[in-house]
Amino acid sequence: MAKLTTRTEDYSKWYNELVVKANLAENSKVRGSMVIKPYGYAIWEKLQAELDKRFKETGHQNAYFPLFVPKSLFEAEEKNAEGFAKECAVVTHYRLKNDPDNKGKLIVDPDAKLEEELIVRPTSEAIIWSTYKNWIQSYRDLPILINQWANVVRWEMRTRLFLRTAEFLWQEGHTAHETKQEAIAEAQQMQDVYADVVENFMAIPVVKGRKSDSERFAGADDTYTIEALMQDGKALQAGTSHFLGQNFAKAFDVKFTSKEGKQEYVWATSWGVSTRLMGALIMTHSDDLGLVLPPKLAPIQVVVVPIYKTDEQLEEIRKVVDTFSSELKAKGVSIKFDDDSQTKPGWKFAEYELKGVPVRVAIGPKDLEKGHVEVARRDTLEKQFITLDNVAVEIEKLLEDIQINLFERAKNFRDNHITEVSTFEEFKTVLEEKGGFLSALWDGTEETEEAIKDATKATIRCIPQAFEIPTEGVDVFSGKPAKYRVLYAKAY
Amino acid sequence: MAKLTTRTEDYSKWYNELVVKANLAENSKVRGSMVIKPYGYAIWEKLQAELDKRFKETGHQNAYFPLFVPKSLFEAEEKNAEGFAKECAVVTHYRLKNDPDNKGKLIVDPDAKLEEELIVRPTSEAIIWSTYKNWIQSYRDLPILINQWANVVRWEMRTRLFLRTAEFLWQEGHTAHETKQEAIAEAQQMQDVYADVVENFMAIPVVKGRKSDSERFAGADDTYTIEALMQDGKALQAGTSHFLGQNFAKAFDVKFTSKEGKQEYVWATSWGVSTRLMGALIMTHSDDLGLVLPPKLAPIQVVVVPIYKTDEQLEEIRKVVDTFSSELKAKGVSIKFDDDSQTKPGWKFAEYELKGVPVRVAIGPKDLEKGHVEVARRDTLEKQFITLDNVAVEIEKLLEDIQINLFERAKNFRDNHITEVSTFEEFKTVLEEKGGFLSALWDGTEETEEAIKDATKATIRCIPQAFEIPTEGVDVFSGKPAKYRVLYAKAY
Repeated sequence: MAKLTTRTEDYSKWYNELVVKANLAENSKVRGSMVIKPYGYAIWEKLQAELDKRFKETGHQNAYFPLFVPKSLFEAEEKNAEGFAKECAVVTHYRLKNDPDNKGKLIVDPDAKLEEELIVRPTSEAIIWSTYKNWIQSYRDLPILINQWANVVRWEMRTRLFLRTAEFLWQEGHTAHETKQEAIAEAQQMQDVYADVVENFMAIPVVKGRKSDSERFAGADDTYTIEALMQDGKALQAGTSHFLGQNFAKAFDVKFTSKEGKQEYVWATSWGVSTRLMGALIMTHSDDLGLVLPPKLAPIQVVVVPIYKTDEQLEEIRKVVDTFSSELKAKGVSIKFDDDSQTKPGWKFAEYELKGVPVRVAIGPKDLEKGHVEVARRDTLEKQFITLDNVAVEIEKLLEDIQINLFERAKNFRDNHITEVSTFEEFKTVLEEKGGFLSALWDGTEETEEAIKDATKATIRCIPQAFEIPTEGVDVFSGKPAKYRVLYAKAY
Repeated sequence: MAKLTTRTEDYSKWYNELVVKANLAENSKVRGSMVIKPYGYAIWEKLQAELDKRFKETGHQNAYFPLFVPKSLFEAEEKNAEGFAKECAVVTHYRLKNDPDNKGKLIVDPDAKLEEELIVRPTSEAIIWSTYKNWIQSYRDLPILINQWANVVRWEMRTRLFLRTAEFLWQEGHTAHETKQEAIAEAQQMQDVYADVVENFMAIPVVKGRKSDSERFAGADDTYTIEALMQDGKALQAGTSHFLGQNFAKAFDVKFTSKEGKQEYVWATSWGVSTRLMGALIMTHSDDLGLVLPPKLAPIQVVVVPIYKTDEQLEEIRKVVDTFSSELKAKGVSIKFDDDSQTKPGWKFAEYELKGVPVRVAIGPKDLEKGHVEVARRDTLEKQFITLDNVAVEIEKLLEDIQINLFERAKNFRDNHITEVSTFEEFKTVLEEKGGFLSALWDGTEETEEAIKDATKATIRCIPQAFEIPTEGVDVFSGKPAKYRVLYAKAY
């Protein structure tokens, strides 16, 4: 097995190779669309299950809305439409026919042109709010708390596996409320749910904050974000939750009769995370040997590799493994005994390192004699011997330890890469030499944001919750009185 | 609450009203596409989970392939392409722009025409086999056993909620094998998995069989089907599993090196069930009061309705309910205590009947005095009193009994609606007066099949497994020597 390009050699190449070689995903024959392979999909399924559980615990129900959005609905909320119009896949016809000039080939049937074009959803606010209109008459119909698991399409020009693809999988929550306060509370609650899952399940530390006006979701009054930091010092927006005000209610004329008998527009939120999180997962924890998975997300948590020459040896090993294996399974640990005789132990070691399996157990005749097994942890690559009667208990502890260690390690890295800068020179130097988040004062204007972006490619990732207090001092770029302290970074 | 149209008044209207009023689904603003509402989606999720478990138990893994199929791939397998070409949604452009003549409106940007049109997948054989080509070199790469949960689009002209919609949700399995025998065994295994879930989970009896050539999946060598019978005497194809031969392997040039070192084409299967099963579920069990759900599929299995006048009474009832409720929850039963003070018990009774909740418990002060509750089962509408200390045990039994009873009732109906006919006069009379499956001898020709369809609208639903034996006698229509005994029916 050829080694991966290392991260220092070429971070971007390392990422692409890892995704493909670890069997997570690959490019398809459709421009910008990927195939999510079984191993990658198994990780996504575990993440999905965890998110879905949290959504249901916070009172949401799943539903399903159409893939297509008629153009007239799509354009109803103007800012949202404008934000997505440039990257829309458009269905214009509903039939193919045989090509009269080319036997066996098909052409679009010009007689099957749609009266109104259909947009393949880049996001579903339009189709959903045109539906909610019929569901909402009175305050008794509120709140509506719905989530949808779906595919969406955004015709991105530069695509990268998981991080930016023309089609991606996501969930999108769409809620409707009586009051502004309730909608804001919902949007913030879902930001918290995302932060909780990303930190405690994916072991990725995040900064919670608000987006600046220019980085906000098209059609939102406020976008709450969780921002993660990758190993190369670039930020990645890991999830967003939007307070949509009454924008969609007004665009689709969705009013309700309040408790006081008045006609009022409904307040809205929407919130989503996507297969992009797979990219964040890979780039937060992995190393030059391959993927590193937090135990809570790993489809296989423990792999056991027997080292043997004869069939008798293998059978003796199998007996011993069966014992601790069933103990671990009873604890809910997923464990694989790889007794494939076609590949050698060394090859298997490399393969499971590449796949990010958190714990590897090796066991041969000598180990049996000594009454122990060799246990290697994927995160630190440390090995230790564990006596046979302690295997299940120790591995269970080890899995917990790895989960915590991965988070702590990533958090240390992240914390060491938040640099407070007070001059624009410092800003540029730190950005260039160290990367990461730059904590800087901002005057609150789009002009400054734009000028800094043009000069450095860094954007305001968020106004952190922690900094949401009136501030003193001057903008790092314009020198004008500052409004907020914000985090800048180059971003995925 | 207005009553449903009854089944005898207008079966089709009854169905549509039920789907909408029970909050299962509704038509959307996109022609032929539906919105699956939370209650309908919750049922679909339970079915999905069960199917997914069975797929994994039989060695399959989930993955995800692109929504779009480039036209050149789509047309590669000619029969498959021909079969779906007439109902394809086609993406031709990837951008909208502002309409210069109409402020605030958008038009398709003519400069953003795709070089090659993209077909929105009606099924994924083409995109998947163009991918498998790169995954398969040697017999060691086989079998590939993959399933995908996805949305697909078929531009049907006449659509009906769940039964036939332009977009629908489904799963599609796509497997690749070394030998013909192995592929056939896989296709038959998945037919068995479908039959098992549909019979034992959905309580819908099915006939297993093979499709005739004309009813076969476009691109398949053989289609195995499970056929159900609805209450109006029409059949419904509930799931199909296809032996695809080497058709897709040849179309996409997918060869492997065999154990003997030869280059051979790969053998394939595909198999799918869809949200159409929701239609089968509704039409098999439901009655004029609304939906009837088998307990295994019911999102709420037991509803408890308190009957009270004062808050003190409600609190006393709540205490008693809490006790048997936690016992039931511990047994894995989902139970809802509906103490909403805005609606009356009678309204609630009707509401939960409409929603198909299998067991309803009513409890008021008089019941407390007598130490019992009133329990009504949704399937037979029978009521009984159960003493308080037996509630959990008895309800658990009742749920099992309802599950069995629904299957038995549907099976009796189905068995009573398989009529052996030996003349075409008899065929027409039974079809007209009784409906159901007509068991008849067939000469094996498409001409006869076509002529019968033209004359009666009945089609060959399948050549049942049970009848796959050489047969004597003559075709019911043509009088020619018969090849098979088959089941005809009018079908959804």
